[in-house]
Amino acid sequence: MADKGSTQRVVIIGAGFAGIEVARGLGKAGVPVTLIDRQNYHLFQPLLYQVATAALSPGDIAEPIRKMLRRYRSVEVVLGDITGIDREARTVALADGTMIAYDWLVLATGSMHSYFGHDDWSVSAPGLKTIEDARRIRSRLLLAFEEAEMSRDPAEQKRLMTIAVIGGGPTGVELAGSIAELARYTLAKDFHRIHAEATTVLLLEAGDRILNAFPASLAAYAQRKLERLGVTVRVRAAVERVTDRSILLAGEEIGVGFTIWAAGVSASGLGRLLGVPTDRAGRIAVNGDLSVPQLQNTYVLGDLAVCKDEHGNPLPGLAQVAKQEGQYLGRALARRIREGLSPPPFRFRNRGNTAIIGRHAAVFDFGWWQLRGWIAWVFWALIHVYLLSGFEHRLLVAVQWLWRYLTYERGARLIVEQPKRESG
Amino acid sequence: MADKGSTQRVVIIGAGFAGIEVARGLGKAGVPVTLIDRQNYHLFQPLLYQVATAALSPGDIAEPIRKMLRRYRSVEVVLGDITGIDREARTVALADGTMIAYDWLVLATGSMHSYFGHDDWSVSAPGLKTIEDARRIRSRLLLAFEEAEMSRDPAEQKRLMTIAVIGGGPTGVELAGSIAELARYTLAKDFHRIHAEATTVLLLEAGDRILNAFPASLAAYAQRKLERLGVTVRVRAAVERVTDRSILLAGEEIGVGFTIWAAGVSASGLGRLLGVPTDRAGRIAVNGDLSVPQLQNTYVLGDLAVCKDEHGNPLPGLAQVAKQEGQYLGRALARRIREGLSPPPFRFRNRGNTAIIGRHAAVFDFGWWQLRGWIAWVFWALIHVYLLSGFEHRLLVAVQWLWRYLTYERGARLIVEQPKRESG
Repeated sequence: MADKGSTQRVVIIGAGFAGIEVARGLGKAGVPVTLIDRQNYHLFQPLLYQVATAALSPGDIAEPIRKMLRRYRSVEVVLGDITGIDREARTVALADGTMIAYDWLVLATGSMHSYFGHDDWSVSAPGLKTIEDARRIRSRLLLAFEEAEMSRDPAEQKRLMTIAVIGGGPTGVELAGSIAELARYTLAKDFHRIHAEATTVLLLEAGDRILNAFPASLAAYAQRKLERLGVTVRVRAAVERVTDRSILLAGEEIGVGFTIWAAGVSASGLGRLLGVPTDRAGRIAVNGDLSVPQLQNTYVLGDLAVCKDEHGNPLPGLAQVAKQEGQYLGRALARRIREGLSPPPFRFRNRGNTAIIGRHAAVFDFGWWQLRGWIAWVFWALIHVYLLSGFEHRLLVAVQWLWRYLTYERGARLIVEQPKRESG
Repeated sequence: MADKGSTQRVVIIGAGFAGIEVARGLGKAGVPVTLIDRQNYHLFQPLLYQVATAALSPGDIAEPIRKMLRRYRSVEVVLGDITGIDREARTVALADGTMIAYDWLVLATGSMHSYFGHDDWSVSAPGLKTIEDARRIRSRLLLAFEEAEMSRDPAEQKRLMTIAVIGGGPTGVELAGSIAELARYTLAKDFHRIHAEATTVLLLEAGDRILNAFPASLAAYAQRKLERLGVTVRVRAAVERVTDRSILLAGEEIGVGFTIWAAGVSASGLGRLLGVPTDRAGRIAVNGDLSVPQLQNTYVLGDLAVCKDEHGNPLPGLAQVAKQEGQYLGRALARRIREGLSPPPFRFRNRGNTAIIGRHAAVFDFGWWQLRGWIAWVFWALIHVYLLSGFEHRLLVAVQWLWRYLTYERGARLIVEQPKRESG
């Protein structure tokens, strides 16, 4: 362990991919850290869509923060909601009245959904960011099929069995593919009256094509694969209105059983507490070392930050960016506090951008190289099992995936939070 | 398959151990069945305490009802809340206005908590019957430790780290043992400031001893084992008042972090809809063939029924009783409907009454034979894995138990529904 005499405390807000890595790096160096999060677990968000589509349980992709950091005696974990940051006094205020003093502040609170000014749509079309979101989406999805089975009206059944996913990025693609597979392979066997395999999954993208962060050839491949699964992909399809029972698209009203929002994110509101300018998405532009211009001892990273690469292009809001930033900052901050050294700026190394479409179909973009199809799908599964935190999670997820691959079953088909159902 | 011409429909309300078996028996015979439940899953309640104590995920012990009954084409599954039973018209009304006609009615809606006239205690001391209950208990339990870690007041820490379990039956014993192990083996490593291994778990029983349905020698063994785990067992301890922060016991106020109610159950309120007399616990006395006296074509079974054995003693409210009753009624009703035959009365075969205390410690009572200790514990685990519905659940639970046995870890330590926390 390094010098124990240091009394400089680092307060990290947010235990996502970025925050947890900063805490690890500082913990290894023995730097006193307080890590604050509103949840007691770290969530592996890349697999959240599998919870929303009944393939995994929430516990499979959530790891207690205390367990992840338990070996670092200098790291303290606090469960709490931040209500204020006092830059003069260098304190953070929690909702329960606690004040926590810092010498260095690290903000990594990530992003949330953005409805581009249509916040009222959030009730009818929930987004997917938290475990509660995933559980709500899973329940509403399964309830739509229950209601269709009960209905005697073919038009109503058709409406209920039309699921819309708004947004053609990786999350939208993964949700649409997974819902189509759930309906076709699993629910089709469960229901006797309705033909769940005839479910309409609409994937709606306002731009010219889906997966616009990927090369056009991979996007075209993904669209073909989705269509083969029964997903209706519509591009240049900007949604004009969303209700519980319909969406309005280029003046056309389409009846839907349920809509999921995967179109936009904005940075978490916590950035505003810092009192510095943010961009339109609520993000804070940072220096090359992830520090905030004009502020002392304050760093922002992950989805909350806009960090530019060596060509001046902003880095995307990806888990691997957040994780690498966290690893960099953990090491850099430890050296700065311990040795007073200024670190070289952060450099992102692209480990490959990926999206999964369904069984035997995934895409990888490594920049200089692309991969798709069966091999990409196996590769995707191996990487995601490897990236999960904790051997138990890896084992459980691998067992469940293998089981699902062999049987087409999905174990976690629970309707747990019953929203108010429309009568009939 | 048997005669398809029958138009006699059996409506079963409740998909617990009893209801699901009736549906299976009738489904095998091709009798038209409508099975109604307010959940879309069948819950394996004997392991619910493991969800409440962060050892398993809800999805591990819940199986979709549709999946369990999917092979029986004559069985229809309906998700709905019953609001009325019209005995004259032979219809059941659902909350969404649907009316379902029956020729034969089977009621198997089980039991819920009873606070013996102190329903206001339910907020401070939740009981354990549903997945929502288990999730709530898990969150409140883990939150008590989070708050203790934040507190700077030793008295307050001691209060928060005192967990009371009211009721010394199998559920109370299993909860107390599991909480003591969670604190001592798992949480003790997670928290740096508090000493979670010093947690006080109070097991409070109003009667003369715990496990009063078991022989005294097994109860004494269980108490010794619990005490070795650090559980404080108090018998003849009738709780006089319960609040969020304390319990009153023989005039003594004991500060607690959280209280769990495992003291009493009463039959589900649905029995009253039948309009027949019930006992004090809301149960309906049934004939030897599980039919309801004075009612035609109506059967009640499981925890909702009082069925007497050949010596005139009422059968206990156990999963194995409900399951055997369901198996009996499924066969008997199929024969009655198909062939007009009156079946011989139901006879219960005791498969062994069991409770688990903790690692290497469980008790079995087979009536003529008792078993305890390490062998009983292995036996308990094997039986419960075997009884779970579905190979995937068996595999996942077995893997998690093995993992927990080897590492003392519990994967599902999620605080997901945060109740309002007291400030400070």
